[in-house]
Amino acid sequence: MLKDVQATPDTRGIALDEVGIEGLRYPVLVADGQGAKRETVATAAMSVTLGPDVKGAHLSRFIEVLHGSREQVTPAAAVGLADDLRQHMGSTSARVHLAFPYFLEREAPVTRSRAYVEYSCGVTAYSGADGTQLKLSVEVPVTSVCPCSKAISDRGAHNQRGRIIIEIKLSDHSTDLWFDELIDIAEGAASSPVYALLKRPDERYVTMAGYDNPVFVEDMVRNVCLALAASSRIAAYRVRAVNDESIHNHAAYAAVSWTPSNGA
Amino acid sequence: MLKDVQATPDTRGIALDEVGIEGLRYPVLVADGQGAKRETVATAAMSVTLGPDVKGAHLSRFIEVLHGSREQVTPAAAVGLADDLRQHMGSTSARVHLAFPYFLEREAPVTRSRAYVEYSCGVTAYSGADGTQLKLSVEVPVTSVCPCSKAISDRGAHNQRGRIIIEIKLSDHSTDLWFDELIDIAEGAASSPVYALLKRPDERYVTMAGYDNPVFVEDMVRNVCLALAASSRIAAYRVRAVNDESIHNHAAYAAVSWTPSNGA
Amino acid sequence: MLKDVQATPDTRGIALDEVGIEGLRYPVLVADGQGAKRETVATAAMSVTLGPDVKGAHLSRFIEVLHGSREQVTPAAAVGLADDLRQHMGSTSARVHLAFPYFLEREAPVTRSRAYVEYSCGVTAYSGADGTQLKLSVEVPVTSVCPCSKAISDRGAHNQRGRIIIEIKLSDHSTDLWFDELIDIAEGAASSPVYALLKRPDERYVTMAGYDNPVFVEDMVRNVCLALAASSRIAAYRVRAVNDESIHNHAAYAAVSWTPSNGA
Amino acid sequence: MLKDVQATPDTRGIALDEVGIEGLRYPVLVADGQGAKRETVATAAMSVTLGPDVKGAHLSRFIEVLHGSREQVTPAAAVGLADDLRQHMGSTSARVHLAFPYFLEREAPVTRSRAYVEYSCGVTAYSGADGTQLKLSVEVPVTSVCPCSKAISDRGAHNQRGRIIIEIKLSDHSTDLWFDELIDIAEGAASSPVYALLKRPDERYVTMAGYDNPVFVEDMVRNVCLALAASSRIAAYRVRAVNDESIHNHAAYAAVSWTPSNGA
Repeated sequence: MLKDVQATPDTRGIALDEVGIEGLRYPVLVADGQGAKRETVATAAMSVTLGPDVKGAHLSRFIEVLHGSREQVTPAAAVGLADDLRQHMGSTSARVHLAFPYFLEREAPVTRSRAYVEYSCGVTAYSGADGTQLKLSVEVPVTSVCPCSKAISDRGAHNQRGRIIIEIKLSDHSTDLWFDELIDIAEGAASSPVYALLKRPDERYVTMAGYDNPVFVEDMVRNVCLALAASSRIAAYRVRAVNDESIHNHAAYAAVSWTPSNGA
Repeated sequence: MLKDVQATPDTRGIALDEVGIEGLRYPVLVADGQGAKRETVATAAMSVTLGPDVKGAHLSRFIEVLHGSREQVTPAAAVGLADDLRQHMGSTSARVHLAFPYFLEREAPVTRSRAYVEYSCGVTAYSGADGTQLKLSVEVPVTSVCPCSKAISDRGAHNQRGRIIIEIKLSDHSTDLWFDELIDIAEGAASSPVYALLKRPDERYVTMAGYDNPVFVEDMVRNVCLALAASSRIAAYRVRAVNDESIHNHAAYAAVSWTPSNGA
Repeated sequence: MLKDVQATPDTRGIALDEVGIEGLRYPVLVADGQGAKRETVATAAMSVTLGPDVKGAHLSRFIEVLHGSREQVTPAAAVGLADDLRQHMGSTSARVHLAFPYFLEREAPVTRSRAYVEYSCGVTAYSGADGTQLKLSVEVPVTSVCPCSKAISDRGAHNQRGRIIIEIKLSDHSTDLWFDELIDIAEGAASSPVYALLKRPDERYVTMAGYDNPVFVEDMVRNVCLALAASSRIAAYRVRAVNDESIHNHAAYAAVSWTPSNGA
Repeated sequence: MLKDVQATPDTRGIALDEVGIEGLRYPVLVADGQGAKRETVATAAMSVTLGPDVKGAHLSRFIEVLHGSREQVTPAAAVGLADDLRQHMGSTSARVHLAFPYFLEREAPVTRSRAYVEYSCGVTAYSGADGTQLKLSVEVPVTSVCPCSKAISDRGAHNQRGRIIIEIKLSDHSTDLWFDELIDIAEGAASSPVYALLKRPDERYVTMAGYDNPVFVEDMVRNVCLALAASSRIAAYRVRAVNDESIHNHAAYAAVSWTPSNGA
């Protein structure tokens, strides 16, 4: 019988918030907005709390639990995974975070040519004595045209690729919100969505649509907030917009967090 | 006179927590533990809050303020930089974050050969109507030997490079804590420090010292907590230890946060 | 009719080796060693040569070609993709590079527990007037134990996670070599493979097996070379081994390139 | 006396092109175009060739040599560093690569406000029985406005941040070319340079200057080639231009290599 070092007592009297693994890359099947399963590659972080009197946690169990659940990643299933982990590890609480590329087939605005666009998505599920919690995140690439540059110049306006990041905490028992809806909100808040495939008539359309709809990072964040405020399924959110400025070698950004305690 | 688009009113009624720049790389002079100035390269993020009635912030002012302050980065000076920013921007609060490589010349344990070791450090300063706040962070590379692997094997023990990350919030008016002290605490919590230059007698020493002092990520976090608890200059902290496991392709980690409200 | 700027003449007289796209993330189906298709996420770079008399290439065609071929990535199909691209673009030559995570289910050495290990793989296909060319690459995580540290220490030996990178150019008309074979060669050249899931009896086995088989980066490269030399399907190779040293904050590496002209 | 494992014979009969270290971060002093020394942080890779009959190289010597030379990084000194390394290691050839951020204070085009812009630079020096060799590289952030988007749209034009990468091999005994000159060539080949600090009159200027000077990645590469062709100090070059397209989530790029054997 091999010695179980992790199970030996610890005398320092310090409980730990998180003991676990991170940076584990794993093939998983994520349900898309229509319920179909899509194979993608997740980067996983999983942890449990550790009481003050125990030396360590058995980390191999995290992989066993993930391996057993990898064929079904949905909001409801992510919460189930955190529950399983908590029981399997005998801990007071467990947390699972899965981040993965998520692809939607998009249509060019004029020619209707189709190609996939990548969105960076994430699910975080928590299970504890106080119940469960579910968070979703999306990072959406967009185009932004600068309102100041347009207003002060006789012609042209600087524009660039930007990113809108939306993180939400779902209301209790809400599991029917998925990435597609958040991605649509982000794309609608920018000067224009970005596309993988644009033919020349599409490029003309996108160029002028963006020029006619200039936005600062401040505007993108506020536009997203207005769209999110409508939903009772959201208990809290954080929104960030980042522009990789075309005239600078740094980024401009804006961010806001909202919880019920800091008002609508 | 060019139009000032940022200064125009906004009707969406949404205040923003942060509007600013990030990813700006800038040459700065950082004071080391002995008061000497060392030139290094900072990655800067700077932001202000924005009221609900204004469309945008003038981001070029951030660069002007940083350019004017770049030759003196100390704890006290970082708070001054946030103060300047707040006034210069006419905002209710301002935040500055500078991250940079910080080098200490280290001596090999036997041959006393000297070379520089890099530590990733950061300063975050906040200035608002409610006063100022200062945070420091260090990321320290270390060696860790696995206690379980040693205990269950007849010979050898897996070991790897790890990292200990300490983030602290200083008590009011404490500005006399610097990176060197936190780095020493982190290195003392691991199986062994890492070095840039080790000759064979040093390698023998380091190998056996590590083997004689095995630690889990849980141990490294707890050891750091014990050392930090001694200081009245620290108002809150967060400690993380991460092992790039030599027998896996993922990392093991442990983390704990402490504030006065959650006990010693 | 929209103007075709790319098709206008250029007078600078400079032909370009590569005009194309890079950093495109796309969902693809990669055949595994048993012929089954696995969905993964590729990072694609695709280019064509451009004659001295034309202003530009029409980059949207690259996405169309990839979109049409994404459901079948095999060695033979990658060459077909480069052929298609060359014809579709009317260029003298075309090049396609796809990099993607590739997962194999691995068994722990004692308990036979199963879990996936990630390998970073790549295919580069070229099509030109002078024929076609196919290259494969794998990056394989491994464990390495230092022979010097073991020899000079009374107990223990520093070890760490390393990576072995094998890039091969296949002999003409050879398309029957796939990643699995190269991965096995790399894992056999190290102190031990790494695993996603190891229970305690496995950890004991892996610790001692590594300790009993110490290797330098130099050894890992040479071991791979000996294994590759046996194959007539390989026209050229480059092998690199990199150790993320556990006692340093930098890496040790060794590399060798071989082509028929520089001997066996 | 500790055993010297590296010096033991090897029977596999395989010589290695490179044995060394990489990813070492080190503080160095780089001479700028005016001869002043600027402290910056280099990422170093250093290697030697290893004969077929020896088991390994003593890697600690690399750090000793770099530590002794860190206060003077110039083209001539980099060659000296490779020479030292070759002799110190008793190898037939040695190679040193240092990459570092390099800052130039730039003036905004209208207000003349000054701030630093970062350029990613590198020096590679080789020393062998066949003589010495010196290579320089710069990566320069720029703005590019799309000529196609401008031509086909009634208003606006998509633009984005791009990068121009120039790598040159110097002619024998040429050591009087430095980064500043290559950076100027790259900035002159784009729609506009980027700046760290632009006030509104500058932003107006830069917006219109870029709109009036649209370039594809193909144009930027060709413009650089024309400028480089003038210099007899350059024995070979490779030029790449990459646009982080504002309307896509991938990059467009063009590249060309030139050596005397493939014509002007």
